[in-house]
Amino acid sequence: MAKEITGRSEDYSQWYIDIVKKANLADNSAVRGCMVIKPYGFAIWENMRDQLDRMFKETGHVNAYFPLFIPKSFLSREAEHVEGFAKECAVVTHHRLMNAPDGSGVVVDPEAKLEEELIVRPTSETIIWHTYKDWIGSYRDLPLLINQWANVVRWEMRTRLFLRTAEFLWQEGHTAHATREEAIAETRQMLDVYATFAEEYMAMPVIKGVKTANERFAGAEDTYCIEALMQDGKALQAGTSHFLGQNFAKAFDVKFLSEDNQLEYVWATSWGVSTRLIGGLIMTHSDDEGLVLPPRLAPIQVVIVPIPKPAPEIDEVAARIMAELKSMGISVQYDTDMKKRPGFKFAEHEMRGIPVRIAIGARDLENGVVEVARRDTKEKATQPLEGIAAHVKTLLDDIQQNLFNKAAAYRAQKTTRVDTFEEFEAIMATDEPGFVAAHWDGTTETELKIKELTKATIRCIPLDNELEDGKCILTGRPSTQRVLFAKAY
Amino acid sequence: MAKEITGRSEDYSQWYIDIVKKANLADNSAVRGCMVIKPYGFAIWENMRDQLDRMFKETGHVNAYFPLFIPKSFLSREAEHVEGFAKECAVVTHHRLMNAPDGSGVVVDPEAKLEEELIVRPTSETIIWHTYKDWIGSYRDLPLLINQWANVVRWEMRTRLFLRTAEFLWQEGHTAHATREEAIAETRQMLDVYATFAEEYMAMPVIKGVKTANERFAGAEDTYCIEALMQDGKALQAGTSHFLGQNFAKAFDVKFLSEDNQLEYVWATSWGVSTRLIGGLIMTHSDDEGLVLPPRLAPIQVVIVPIPKPAPEIDEVAARIMAELKSMGISVQYDTDMKKRPGFKFAEHEMRGIPVRIAIGARDLENGVVEVARRDTKEKATQPLEGIAAHVKTLLDDIQQNLFNKAAAYRAQKTTRVDTFEEFEAIMATDEPGFVAAHWDGTTETELKIKELTKATIRCIPLDNELEDGKCILTGRPSTQRVLFAKAY
Repeated sequence: MAKEITGRSEDYSQWYIDIVKKANLADNSAVRGCMVIKPYGFAIWENMRDQLDRMFKETGHVNAYFPLFIPKSFLSREAEHVEGFAKECAVVTHHRLMNAPDGSGVVVDPEAKLEEELIVRPTSETIIWHTYKDWIGSYRDLPLLINQWANVVRWEMRTRLFLRTAEFLWQEGHTAHATREEAIAETRQMLDVYATFAEEYMAMPVIKGVKTANERFAGAEDTYCIEALMQDGKALQAGTSHFLGQNFAKAFDVKFLSEDNQLEYVWATSWGVSTRLIGGLIMTHSDDEGLVLPPRLAPIQVVIVPIPKPAPEIDEVAARIMAELKSMGISVQYDTDMKKRPGFKFAEHEMRGIPVRIAIGARDLENGVVEVARRDTKEKATQPLEGIAAHVKTLLDDIQQNLFNKAAAYRAQKTTRVDTFEEFEAIMATDEPGFVAAHWDGTTETELKIKELTKATIRCIPLDNELEDGKCILTGRPSTQRVLFAKAY
Repeated sequence: MAKEITGRSEDYSQWYIDIVKKANLADNSAVRGCMVIKPYGFAIWENMRDQLDRMFKETGHVNAYFPLFIPKSFLSREAEHVEGFAKECAVVTHHRLMNAPDGSGVVVDPEAKLEEELIVRPTSETIIWHTYKDWIGSYRDLPLLINQWANVVRWEMRTRLFLRTAEFLWQEGHTAHATREEAIAETRQMLDVYATFAEEYMAMPVIKGVKTANERFAGAEDTYCIEALMQDGKALQAGTSHFLGQNFAKAFDVKFLSEDNQLEYVWATSWGVSTRLIGGLIMTHSDDEGLVLPPRLAPIQVVIVPIPKPAPEIDEVAARIMAELKSMGISVQYDTDMKKRPGFKFAEHEMRGIPVRIAIGARDLENGVVEVARRDTKEKATQPLEGIAAHVKTLLDDIQQNLFNKAAAYRAQKTTRVDTFEEFEAIMATDEPGFVAAHWDGTTETELKIKELTKATIRCIPLDNELEDGKCILTGRPSTQRVLFAKAY
């Protein structure tokens, strides 16, 4: 089974697609650019969603649901916003089909044309701020801390499963505040929530930063982001948190009566992560044998394989181990298939990225031991049956930590400080360029020129940046800090 | 606050809308027929969803996600299905907007017309069975037990919050089986799951039955349903479970190799409940003071109100009670507002349907007691502070049971057996007609004629029906069992 996937060194893109398909995570659908998320892939998304939802609620947010459709005129209210989204949206123009007069099937009923076209939401700032106008009257209505789990559509021309699809699932937080300071604090808080989730659950180290003007969300004053480095030395934007200033409040005329009895525009934030995270998860940890999942997000954390196949005495021990693991909150599956050989099963479970495998044979039982294999390092060890559940629990924590450490080590190795454009170009021309910290003169013009020459973009200006005088690698103009460049997904 | 809602006896429809709006459950949106589900309403939906999801998983189902869009040609594959859904669907025809040449805003870009129009899913049988063709090859791939939580769109002309909206949230199960018997067993199992959920969680008694041919889902061989009776004597279809036979397998050419090595068409079911359930919940229990929620679905089960307002000694006792309730898994809120009077707060919490209210005053504390009020009966009692959490826990169970009993008693009172069309017409002409069990000759013609004359429809043929010879109330033709008529939402 493992032989069916392309090696990473051979063709990283194809390796990625192979993993997505062979591990049964997702598939292309009959609709251009839209994916089918298969049960195993969706179970990973459910784990991500449940954890994020818990973190959102702990920080005072509540969920709500806003319409799928946005009246065309709403998009135009915020000038940059429409510029950013009008070019790639699904437009609903009619509300009925009819039988074709010539009997050839069903056709759009021309009588059922909508007065105003509806856009399938690419993001919901406009419909939400239109609604907030009714909900916000005074400072007592603020802050409004709302999140939505939803599907959105952006008509991307080049799609790739999870990473860039026409329809994707995400959450979008939309908050309203009385002051600029409070809105900025919210933007930063949610960036921290995303970073914590990425590092502690996905085991994916991220850099927190702020985007340049050129890479900002359409309609934001500032876009903060978390950026991760994939195994092929390319960066992935994994989540964004936007400080929207008063832009949407002005576009939708949302004012509140302050404690001083003044009518003021409301301050806004929005923030989101999507099913794209699953793509990041795959490209951070997986290998040529298949998916590798961090235990905290794995739908099945432990699989037990009877050697060579189920038998009463093995089943009984497996049942005991399973009960003990379950009581510790560990998810476990017993592979009861009678026909497949153990080696085939091992390869299957490796492909699915199950963190720990326990193999139980009759002879092992005589000796009071089982074989425990970890997916991340492929190490196997004979372990006493006595205390096996506690051992597995510790092992899962070890695996979680090891995956993070390995990814962090790779990122450290692939982060370079560069002071000349020659060095910069040379690194960007390699197979795995990684992050490059370099000086930049702060202009969009230079940023675009560097992108044109090297395909590298400024991923972010890291929040923990040290100030340091230097010269822009392209123009030689003065700069006060390094920014982080990479080729990106 | 309570004065702001219309009385049920005065105008039931307006009462319903008032409850939805004043209890902050949902609101109309800028998009015709689409609603905004507000945080409090969404919290109820989250509780419903979590419980149903648990029940689906316990019966072996897994979640997945299929595209929002359905190619127009897919709808036409199943003849009845397209007939049922083509007349009310949102059609995507373009994938881009552009600046209007005259500078008047953005318009649809005529260059971006789709080759084939896409329908926003009204239900997903077609796209899912198109996908299942790739997933099913042999009997080893069956059964396939998949559920999806999603938004769907049906372009209804007359909408009402939760009960009938253009966009709504639901779950749709789509299963595939090797035999007719197994598919029918699945259809019935999921009907039982719905009935259990309705009765044990919503405290809403339901009748399980099968639909007549005329009321069947477009494309089903049999539609099973649960039907509930609302307080105004009208019925609400609360959930449906369809046995689809081989209709979709044939339409999408989904065959499997049986254990006997024969190529056979797959057998299918689909089943769903939606945010409509929230409408049913409201109309089953609520009263002229506002929402009444069964404790098992209430986002906040207990509210503590300090009398007359927060003070250190009261706060301390409240904190102790809250900690104890939370440790029992009971959700509780402490009303810390300093400005509102207790009477105003009481009315607010009644409007929100919080099952239990605990009022704590300084004098009560001297006597070691608090005042406990239950939302369902409005009864108040003085209770010792000692053991208050255990008392509340029992009280919540009582309320849950009482709500069910009350609704069941109302339904019993409003269910009539009728043998003549005169009696039938007379009951249907009353204000609260309820369910009427009567003989029917089994023809669609008679069913439609009765509907035309009385506005009553056959809600279902109850599954536990006793066979009984009789004569159709309209035509006098022979009949072997009574069916259940009602006016319906």
